This record gives sequence, structure tokens and C-alpha cells, in this order.
Amino acid sequence: MDSAKNKGSPLAERRTITGFSNPLVKFLRSLREKKHRKREERFLAEGLRLLTDARECGVLPEMLVMAIGREPHPLLDALEEAVAAAGGEIVEMDEEILAKVTGKDNPQAVAGVFAEFDTRLANLDRSAAPIWLVAQALRDPGNLGTMLRTGDAVGAGGLILIDDCADPFSVEAVRASMGAIFTQKIAIARWDEFLPWLRNGDGGNGGQLVAASLRDPTDYREAPYAAPCFLMVGNESQGLPQAYEEACDLRVTIPMLGRADSLNAAVAGAVLAYEALAHLRPGK
Amino acid sequence: MDSAKNKGSPLAERRTITGFSNPLVKFLRSLREKKHRKREERFLAEGLRLLTDARECGVLPEMLVMAIGREPHPLLDALEEAVAAAGGEIVEMDEEILAKVTGKDNPQAVAGVFAEFDTRLANLDRSAAPIWLVAQALRDPGNLGTMLRTGDAVGAGGLILIDDCADPFSVEAVRASMGAIFTQKIAIARWDEFLPWLRNGDGGNGGQLVAASLRDPTDYREAPYAAPCFLMVGNESQGLPQAYEEACDLRVTIPMLGRADSLNAAVAGAVLAYEALAHLRPGK
Repeated sequence: MDSAKNKGSPLAERRTITGFSNPLVKFLRSLREKKHRKREERFLAEGLRLLTDARECGVLPEMLVMAIGREPHPLLDALEEAVAAAGGEIVEMDEEILAKVTGKDNPQAVAGVFAEFDTRLANLDRSAAPIWLVAQALRDPGNLGTMLRTGDAVGAGGLILIDDCADPFSVEAVRASMGAIFTQKIAIARWDEFLPWLRNGDGGNGGQLVAASLRDPTDYREAPYAAPCFLMVGNESQGLPQAYEEACDLRVTIPMLGRADSLNAAVAGAVLAYEALAHLRPGK
Repeated sequence: MDSAKNKGSPLAERRTITGFSNPLVKFLRSLREKKHRKREERFLAEGLRLLTDARECGVLPEMLVMAIGREPHPLLDALEEAVAAAGGEIVEMDEEILAKVTGKDNPQAVAGVFAEFDTRLANLDRSAAPIWLVAQALRDPGNLGTMLRTGDAVGAGGLILIDDCADPFSVEAVRASMGAIFTQKIAIARWDEFLPWLRNGDGGNGGQLVAASLRDPTDYREAPYAAPCFLMVGNESQGLPQAYEEACDLRVTIPMLGRADSLNAAVAGAVLAYEALAHLRPGK
């Protein structure tokens, strides 16, 4: 393999990997599994667009992995330069090896290893945004990433994951977030941590908890949303546990005119979020 | 394998399959691929809930496939009875073989083979519903199924697929539709068929074509939606071609307050559809 063309770059030290059996390849591949991500406290993000989103949000990978035979691209140069300037590591590898790491369908042969973010509730500043999304036992990483993306669009502060949700740092969730993983705060908590945090914050005025519900006749278009507004959606099959709904300050009904009695979880969250936005948005 | 317990049923003739090499197994597995679905004009739907949805919509599979060692269930009995009464075929097979057919993660070991629906535009009665969804080059079968599900929820008439979309009869799209594949009409057309159909229908008053757009300042909350209202979303990466947007009667803007400039396609469709519903719904 010809890696000579990248020799002599003015940039910082770099490694070149040409064998599948290199321990780094094993490490990178391991980050596709949750248990390894947790142990390493690292996650993977793939593709130039996503990594550029990260850079533009001021988040840089600790390690940038690129194909040896890549096409030059100004955004890739910018990324390489930023990672090197921040003391990160640049790794080049054979295309076929990188394909094993990133999944075959990725034509943009670049990936980054990021330190996982701090996901403690205590890190959230609830006054920073009028809307927060809350997902309970959401199992589909695509839905989770889509909720992050919607959160970014409505100017939410972040996504709070209650109970046993999919991993927001999975490759699928990161990809579906379309970069919102780098703009939205993420917190992970049990229900019995979340509710006291919500109720005891800001002198007992911690926020309004809202759920879409079939048990309450309040039309979601006419409901008295109040900031900070925490919009909660439940598990894809079960929905929210009844006790969770009952703990909400507001239960709203989204019309269901057809045969089905529920929407896709990410869709329900988005319909609620855009409605709350219209009520809460300054100047509207 | 003990299949004796199902012998002597009062129901119609049935076949029992105990070998992987049976041609029927190959046929069923082939329906996971689009080219075979097109050739056979058949598609697969899996799981008791989905098949019950179909039955309750008056749509029965031509063939019902069940695991030999299945747990009895009244809905399964109802399904079996309905299929037999309609002259359909009942097939039982070893669980491991059925798992190969349906995909391993399906604990409800039942599947149905359905005749594909007629997907010609000419079949749609646009006056039957105030809202219709239109997807252009939507490539993700999950998004497509989610749009069907949303269409059912807002009382839409159906989903029109323009240009090269994912196959609505794929197992993934059918599953994501949560039964809406059986309640929503589906039409497949090229843009240059769709536009004349829209414009020339009902004496030239065929419907209002609406797209979410970044090129127009009309707030999606304040737009003059009119029935029959055709809400169009574009491809996941490219969005709608500019010429398609320009052909629309109405271009509306959904606020994007974050870094990203677009929503997930199924989410955008749902936010638009619920907004149009609020404007068009009788009695509101």
C-alpha cells in the first residue's frame, strides 16, 4: 500500500495501519458495542459531515481515522488540522480496514473517536432552553437520534433518557442525530432520580412535565405549555407507564383519526415539540 | 417433529413443512427481496398484531404461515378461521424454519402472504380525504412506513410515492407502518405522471400541492391549507428538487432554530400533516 503521499505532512505525528490484526482496529471495532463503549468511555462518529458538525460545535475527536487513499477535501483538511492542533491523534489505514471499522456503506472514509459526554442530570441547566425532550425506555437508536435532531431544530436544551433506553452514543443514534449529538445535552437517569430533580430544582419551580396521553382530553393545540417545558414520550410498544403519566403536570391528546392509537415515538415527540415551540417562542 | 396436535382440525386443508429445502420456504424467503416481490406480486407481513390489523381492515393473506409449536391465541384462531373461510391456504412449519422466513427476532411466529395492492394513481379518489401525503425519492423503508402510520393518524387518504422510493411492500416498511399499510391507499408514480394527474383532476381543481421549503418565508402555522391538500416531503439527503418545490401551490417554512437545516423526512411530514389537519379538520 502506498502511504508515502501522506508522509512529510506538516501535521503532528500520525500512525499508519495496514493490517487487520492491529490492536487499534480491534479497539475501533469494539466501539460498535455498548459494553465496550461504556468501558472505554468513548464513542465513534463516522463521516465527514458529522465530524465537521462536531468541529463547528467545538467538539473534536481524540483520534481521527482516515483512509490512506482518500480524496482530498477542504473540510477534511480543516478537521485534520484542528485535531492535530488540539493534540489529538491522526491515524491512517487501508480503505478495506477502515471499511471494517465504519461499516461498508460509508463512502466518506473518515471516523472519529470521541470521549463520551458527562450524562449526569446535575449537569443540565434547565433555564438554558424553553423546551427539553424526555424519552422513557426508548429502544430504537434511530428514534433516539431523530429526537436529538428534532430537539436541535426546536431549540431544545437536550434529551433526558429515562429508564432503559437505547444508547445515545451508538453509531446508529449518532448517525440519525445528524450532528445534534454535538448540540444537544444528554442526560441519563432513572425515573426516581429524574422526578425529584425536576420537582426540587430552581426552588421547587423546576419545570412542567408534559406527556401525550390517551387518558386526558386536553387538546395538544390548546394546552397551557410553560417553560421550561419537559416533553416526555414513552417506549415504542408500551408507551409511558400510567404512574409516569399521572406524575405529569399536563397530559395532552394528539388526535388519532385512524385505526391506530399511537404515533411513532419520535414523530409524537416532534409534533408535541413544535406545538410547544409555537406557544413558548419569544415574539410569537 | 410432532405435528399431530394440529391434525383433525375442522379447518380447511393445510400443509406441514418440516424441511428447509421445501420450495415454499424458498418462495417465502424470496419475498424479502424487492425483485421477487415484484415478480410474484406478493408481499409478506409478519406478526399476529399486523395480521390482525389486516383482518380487521378486511384484508386477508392468501397464505397464512404458522409455527407448529405455537402457543394458542384467540386472535390466531380468528385469523386462521378467516383465511380458511376465504379459501386461503394454511401452512405450518417447524419454528426454526419459520424463524428463517420471518427473521429471528420475531417471537410471534406467524406470517402472511398478501397480494400486492394496485398502486396506480388512477385508483385514488382524492375527494375521499382532506389530506394526502407525498414522498419523493424517500429511500428509508422505516421512514416510509412511519409516513403511512402518520397518514392513518391524521385521517389521510394515502401515500403517493414519487420517483425512486423505497418499496412500501418491504418487510421493514410494512412493519413500521404498524398496520397502516392496510388502511392507507398507496400509489407509485413518476413526477411527470403525478403532476398532470394532480392538475387535471376534478375539472382542473385537483388539489393543493404543499412542500416544506427553506426558500419561502410563509410560516407553516399561518399558511392557507386547502383540501384536498397534498403534503410533499423529499429525499432524506437531497430534499426536494427545486423544480418540484417551484411547482407547488404553497411552500411553507418550519422553524429550524438549531444548527441543522432539516428534519428527519418522516418527522417533517408529520409536523406538516398535523398542522394541515388543525386547519382542515371539520368543526375546528
